This record gives sequence, structure tokens and C-alpha cells, in this order.
Amino acid sequence: MRNIKILIEYDGTNYKGWQIQSNAKSVQGELTKALRSLIGSKVTLTGAGRTDSGVHAMGQVANFRTESEISARKFMEGLNGTLPKDIRILHSIEVEEDFHSRRDALERQYHYKVIKRESALARFYAYGPGYDLSLQDMVTAAKIIKANTDFSSFCNTRSETENKKCKIRKSEWRENGDYMYYTIAADRFIYNMVRSLVGTMIEVGRGKITVEQFEEIFDKSDRSAAGPNAPAHGLYLEKVVYAENFN
Amino acid sequence: MRNIKILIEYDGTNYKGWQIQSNAKSVQGELTKALRSLIGSKVTLTGAGRTDSGVHAMGQVANFRTESEISARKFMEGLNGTLPKDIRILHSIEVEEDFHSRRDALERQYHYKVIKRESALARFYAYGPGYDLSLQDMVTAAKIIKANTDFSSFCNTRSETENKKCKIRKSEWRENGDYMYYTIAADRFIYNMVRSLVGTMIEVGRGKITVEQFEEIFDKSDRSAAGPNAPAHGLYLEKVVYAENFN
Repeated sequence: MRNIKILIEYDGTNYKGWQIQSNAKSVQGELTKALRSLIGSKVTLTGAGRTDSGVHAMGQVANFRTESEISARKFMEGLNGTLPKDIRILHSIEVEEDFHSRRDALERQYHYKVIKRESALARFYAYGPGYDLSLQDMVTAAKIIKANTDFSSFCNTRSETENKKCKIRKSEWRENGDYMYYTIAADRFIYNMVRSLVGTMIEVGRGKITVEQFEEIFDKSDRSAAGPNAPAHGLYLEKVVYAENFN
Repeated sequence: MRNIKILIEYDGTNYKGWQIQSNAKSVQGELTKALRSLIGSKVTLTGAGRTDSGVHAMGQVANFRTESEISARKFMEGLNGTLPKDIRILHSIEVEEDFHSRRDALERQYHYKVIKRESALARFYAYGPGYDLSLQDMVTAAKIIKANTDFSSFCNTRSETENKKCKIRKSEWRENGDYMYYTIAADRFIYNMVRSLVGTMIEVGRGKITVEQFEEIFDKSDRSAAGPNAPAHGLYLEKVVYAENFN
């Protein structure tokens, strides 16, 4: 069996997230449908990250096994010919047979876009909280995140049985004109963790939670101690990192 | 009569352009409707630039006269409460009674976004020609535009009776990652001129027209000598400049 790895960009606005569902439009569902029509038989598609409803991706990675003789590059062209315009394949290559896009991921990177004013053009692509935020306090909060490893207080109750430890490799805010960007990279993420971290940092930025209180949330291991989830439409799965032999 | 000036950002994707029309959704139409509901009587809204169907704006300027006692700032808040989310008022102030957003504009600035790859997220916000472009040749073409004043070869036949002279104050391409940005500022623009200039520069960039041929198009005063119009969705009305007393 050949194993094909694809790099995917999508606009999550019109999808109920990555994961295939019976009654709702999903990115994985659209891709599976397009693959079936291209290859002529059913294909199982594995994705690196399960993005929520409304979350975007510029670097989602997925893989599928097939007996098809279509060249790796032609998968990109063929899929882009069939897929809706809000899902695009940016790259497709053949990889080793044992490659698994989720299990082999060494690191995932997300970013979150905040806009500091009303915006028509960014309404689906950045979150506008509508109040002033202190970048300095949010930068400090981002450093606190990097220094921690237990994210029990920042994960949805839906993920209660999971391992709550993550190695954070990057956690930083930067400002550019009317936008504030948060970038976070880690070996793994827990369900809803990034939106919960960003939502709580925004509470810090607007002065509802002090930097000290933010630090204490980590020790409480209690989701209700943190702030609300930031809205999905500001979040992007930016890239997934693998060992060199899988690139 | 008070005279209120508003600064408007809009996503042109779902509108048949700025100008009010009886059978199609327009930005001016939505604004007029929102103003009527806010003020309670009919208002005539004048815009600085008539953008085409699908063209965006982050700096459209308009003005209207009213007897209403609503404070200038409250016009922004009130309109944003009523308008669809793809039209936002960024600023509203009271100006001198004789201010006219179109006639008093000293300079308008547009920019055009080209993306060098397939993109799901930019599909309504940048044009992807799908072939390699030489930035260097396009930079030269942009300089030629700045050196010219007669744009007869770059205006739609619909504008035949108009004055075809424009003073170009800025005309430049820059590249940033996967994007190429063209910025043009002038005292005035002729109908379809920016899209015609960009479409022709793209022909230069892909090698269909040489820089020398591009220069010769100006002397021909013939629209058919130029390239096709670049698609509307890459174009943005960026700002409109007025004399200081109108700001």
C-alpha cells in the first residue's frame, strides 16, 4: 500500500470542524468524499489535529493509504479540482508506509489573531474583544504558560480522562498595527486548551485577572478557575512538525 | 444642516459594489437603510469612490446632511448596531457644511493583493493568477505608470466621455511571503482603471507583454491594447485624503 501525506489549508467558517460527522459538513468529510471520487474507492483519512467548528488551518497534515497509481503530485491537483474553494491542498507527497499524521507529529503550532477595532474584512478571521488590552501583561502571561507543563485548568471537561501534560516550546504575543498575534507550539494539545489559554490571557489583558492570579490558576487543576474560551474564528492550526524522514 | 463624515470598511464579496441599485444589494444601499432607521427620515449619502462588485474597502469615506441631534460619535455606534457585519463604520465626525466626500477628495489610494499559491483563506481577498510572476518587471511597469498622465488605454469603454488624465502620486509593488501588493495613489481614477492596470502588469509579470510593450500601450489611447481587468476581489479602496480642515 502507498501512503500519501497531504498539507491542507482551510477556512473553517462553514465547517463543523475537522472531524467527519454524519449530519454536519466537516473538512475531513469533504476530503474523504473528494478522495473517493478521485480514486474510485473508499479511503480512510487521518488528520494531525482535530480543529473545532470555525477554526482555520493553514498547515493541517493528513495521510491516507491507497493502491491507486495516481502520482503523489496529481493527488494535489485532482483534489483541488474537486474540493470546495475553502479547502485547498498545498502539497502532496508519498511517505513511508508506517507514517501516521497524528501519532508521528512531534510538534503542533497554532496562532490566534486578535483585532483591536471593529472590522468587516476580518470578521471571520480575527477576534475583536471590543476593549483595550495590555500587551505587556499578556506577554508575561504567555511566559508563564511556557514555564508550565500541567494544563488541567485549561482543558474542557470533555477531556477529563486524558493526560494533561504538555511541553510548551513557544508561547508569545506580538503586536502589528491593529492586530495582536499569539503563537503557541507544543508536543501535544488537550481539547480546547488553546482557546481556553487565549480567553484567560485576554482576561489578564483587560485587567479582570492579574498576572499573579493567572499563575495561580495552573495550581488549581480546575477548569472553572480559568477564563472563558476565546472564540473559534481567531484560531489557526499553523503547522505540524515531523521527523525529517517523514517530510 | 449638520454634515457628518463617516469612514467605512467593507467586505465587498456579497455586494454589487458601492452604488445604490434597485435590484441588487449595495454598500450604499445598506448604509442608507441603516441611516434611515437610525434617524427616522430619508438621508442622501455621498461616497468618495464607487467601488465595483466584489471590491473591498478599508477606507471608504462618505458624508450625509441631517437635522438629527444624534452626536457624531453615536452615529458610528448606532450604525454598527444595525448594519450587517460585513460593513463597519470605523469613525464618524461632524464636518463643515460644504464638505463633499467625492468632490473634495484630494487623493485616493487603492491596493491590490496577489497571492502566489492556492489559498482557501484568501479566496475572496487576494487574486491567485496561478503562474509565476516576475516582480522585477512588474516593479518597472509600476514606475512607467507613475511617469504617465493619460490613461485612455486603461479605462473601460463606459467611461469614454470622461477626462482621462490622472496625476499618479504612488505606484509600487512589494512582495511579502506568498503575497505581492500593488499600491497606487492618484488625484482621481477612471472607471476600471486600477483593475486594468493591474491586469496588464500581471501580463508583464508572466512574460506575455514586455516592459517596452507596456510603455507603448500608453501612446495608443486604445483600451484593447491593454491586458484584461484583474479580478475585483483582490482590490481594496485603502484611503481617501482631504484637506486638513475636513479631517
